[in-house]
Amino acid sequence: MARENKNPLAMGESEPTAKINLVTEGLVTSAQDEQDSRESHGWERSLLTRLIKFLGNPAIRIELWDGYGEEGTADTPLIGTVRIKTRSAFNHIITNAMLGFGDEYCAGRVEIDGDLVDVLTECFSQISSGFGFFGIMEKMMTRRPRINSLLGSRENIQHHYDIDNNFYSLWLDHEMQYTCAYFAADDYTLEDAQLAKMDHICRKLQLRAGDRVIEAGCGWGGLARHMALYYGAKVTAYNISGEQIRFARERAQREGYQDRVEYVEDDYRNIKGEFDVFVSVGMLEHVGKGSYGILGKTIDAHLAPEGRCLIHAIGRNEPRLMNSWIEKRIFPGAYPPSLGEMMEIFEVGKFSVLDVENLRLHYARTLEHWLYRYNRSEHTVVSMFDDVFLRAWRLYLSGSIAAFLSGNLQLFQVVFARVRDNSIPWTREHVYPSD
Amino acid sequence: MARENKNPLAMGESEPTAKINLVTEGLVTSAQDEQDSRESHGWERSLLTRLIKFLGNPAIRIELWDGYGEEGTADTPLIGTVRIKTRSAFNHIITNAMLGFGDEYCAGRVEIDGDLVDVLTECFSQISSGFGFFGIMEKMMTRRPRINSLLGSRENIQHHYDIDNNFYSLWLDHEMQYTCAYFAADDYTLEDAQLAKMDHICRKLQLRAGDRVIEAGCGWGGLARHMALYYGAKVTAYNISGEQIRFARERAQREGYQDRVEYVEDDYRNIKGEFDVFVSVGMLEHVGKGSYGILGKTIDAHLAPEGRCLIHAIGRNEPRLMNSWIEKRIFPGAYPPSLGEMMEIFEVGKFSVLDVENLRLHYARTLEHWLYRYNRSEHTVVSMFDDVFLRAWRLYLSGSIAAFLSGNLQLFQVVFARVRDNSIPWTREHVYPSD
Repeated sequence: MARENKNPLAMGESEPTAKINLVTEGLVTSAQDEQDSRESHGWERSLLTRLIKFLGNPAIRIELWDGYGEEGTADTPLIGTVRIKTRSAFNHIITNAMLGFGDEYCAGRVEIDGDLVDVLTECFSQISSGFGFFGIMEKMMTRRPRINSLLGSRENIQHHYDIDNNFYSLWLDHEMQYTCAYFAADDYTLEDAQLAKMDHICRKLQLRAGDRVIEAGCGWGGLARHMALYYGAKVTAYNISGEQIRFARERAQREGYQDRVEYVEDDYRNIKGEFDVFVSVGMLEHVGKGSYGILGKTIDAHLAPEGRCLIHAIGRNEPRLMNSWIEKRIFPGAYPPSLGEMMEIFEVGKFSVLDVENLRLHYARTLEHWLYRYNRSEHTVVSMFDDVFLRAWRLYLSGSIAAFLSGNLQLFQVVFARVRDNSIPWTREHVYPSD
Repeated sequence: MARENKNPLAMGESEPTAKINLVTEGLVTSAQDEQDSRESHGWERSLLTRLIKFLGNPAIRIELWDGYGEEGTADTPLIGTVRIKTRSAFNHIITNAMLGFGDEYCAGRVEIDGDLVDVLTECFSQISSGFGFFGIMEKMMTRRPRINSLLGSRENIQHHYDIDNNFYSLWLDHEMQYTCAYFAADDYTLEDAQLAKMDHICRKLQLRAGDRVIEAGCGWGGLARHMALYYGAKVTAYNISGEQIRFARERAQREGYQDRVEYVEDDYRNIKGEFDVFVSVGMLEHVGKGSYGILGKTIDAHLAPEGRCLIHAIGRNEPRLMNSWIEKRIFPGAYPPSLGEMMEIFEVGKFSVLDVENLRLHYARTLEHWLYRYNRSEHTVVSMFDDVFLRAWRLYLSGSIAAFLSGNLQLFQVVFARVRDNSIPWTREHVYPSD
């Protein structure tokens, strides 16, 4: 049965719901909890006040298990209500706001009246940056990401990406692009926008027939295929997710382009040979803060003198630890760097940054498409996994929309080249052809 | 007479050549030097070997006063010869390569056989990043820039920009743009490219009629005028160079747009009121490393909720101190920050970086135009100042070309906006209109 071995929340060890409650150990158990129908105490209500304040007084009502509730002092009409249905769920949230909220929402002990995305966006937009009791608690509890050693990276990646490919195909586009799309025009479908994203990248890289391309972190292989079939490039694409590589290879075989794209199940640190183009879309988030210099050195070691490079990654405006629930339940080892932190790649690798574009709003819209399709496939998801998984991934997709809409997350595309390379383009006109 | 009070090398205190030799005090004096025609010693020759090595073995010959010379081991044909004509000049260069070379070149005790720009570009391209004897000496001797307090900034700026406006008009374009132009097409003249630069910036800022613009560091007022006359913006332009402000005001009066551009002789830190657009072209280099946070806070304090911002500045690939000769003789207090260092502006100001473009090659070409016009006006420059000044500015312009061509300097245009602003443009199509 799928539940046991496929649920990524289980980290491949045991039954998911048990894992979800891991960090609540020592708090009131679920059994006791059900029986605890006593009214909320005065000190609990005063903690609720502080929680609302920590959230920046959003236009949200938070209600405790006994119906007692408070709301932010925002002038705008109320956007929704967060109902914390048990005392233990409240304790959990008080102890560790992000992780507690996430786990309790998944377990069904927190419910949202109103639109989940709207409620989260309001909270993410108002939240203060960490003063006071909850801010300090949050900082203390926020997990430092796992170390991304060669082995650790593999485990982290498999946790997320080796979930059944059929699951992702329920809500991704035809090309299985699991990264930010590019909505070049307002009426683009998700399919249009994913193709446009690939072309946008190829144009930025001035991709030409015969170019030797290295792709680091190739997902299900869509970009490598696009570069080979439509631009005539010779692509070597690396990925440490066995499931994704298997999928990509089978497709290349079936469609007959296996001589033009080599899918390699290996780490970007093991790249070999010289290449004209380096591209990495959505991998940097998994590289981890300690390894940017290694990435820079790796590119430097293999790039041709006039090679062109592009990194596309989720980032931040300033250094900040990952949301602890996302890091624990969804993306172990992930860390979206600030633009300043990314500079280590280019400084160590002796590169010049030529072009940075921030596509934050495009990722919000991409995720809206994914969430819509995901919700449409609700019954299939439950039948593949369970209700906790369904809620977890809904929270993850919704929270990500909120993070991009509120500016907590950014999406950077960075074009770079060797410091001495004077063959770099003079303008960016080639990215915006007039036809 | 112009020489005494206008020569910026004199720092407004005394006779220029005396100042030029400031740091040579304690070394062999010029009088003794002339008489010293003894052959170079073995240890001097071995220092020359190390100097060549420090320079990365460029395709350059360096010759001592007695005709003894060495050249780098580069495979390419020899680009030129640097002739060090006296023992004291050699001692000076050995003690402090950059400052010594600059001052001795100005004083005519170092001569270049071959094209000055080519020789400097070759050296800048090959130079290693600071190991060995000269690297360490250079690091020890490289000046930390002066502190840019309100008063200090004023002195630093006046040192450079309050030189006779007639001097700059000898070699700048009609609009007196003393910053990197934008050569949108290959056949652009300097005049075309400076206009294109201003339009490029206005497009990036989506400048609209009625926009309230603050310009920080407005030079001779050309961009402010352009924004007012061609885009209908209402501009308040700050500058602490009295000469430039006087020039800008007189022109506005003469051409009748003084109601649409206010030129304010004041520091950017004293900006007042709310504005829709913040723009700063070529000022950040003078802001200094300690003040980026203040700049960020200043913008944050006055920008409208959906305000658009652009900073255009010389930068670096990695943090590095300014060339000590440039910092001492040409641009006191100047410091071109790395892109990473610039991030302090945006992090402290709570902004999102939306777009970064590197226009390094455009600055090299801009400087080539300036140098060509400057050399054409050689006699006028000497009659306005003196031969030392002529050589100093020739070295500064030539060295800057070399720095941009070799990738030692970058030119970044950064567009940014408030973190919560979702009115930001979805694409950059508006910067590249198809007509």
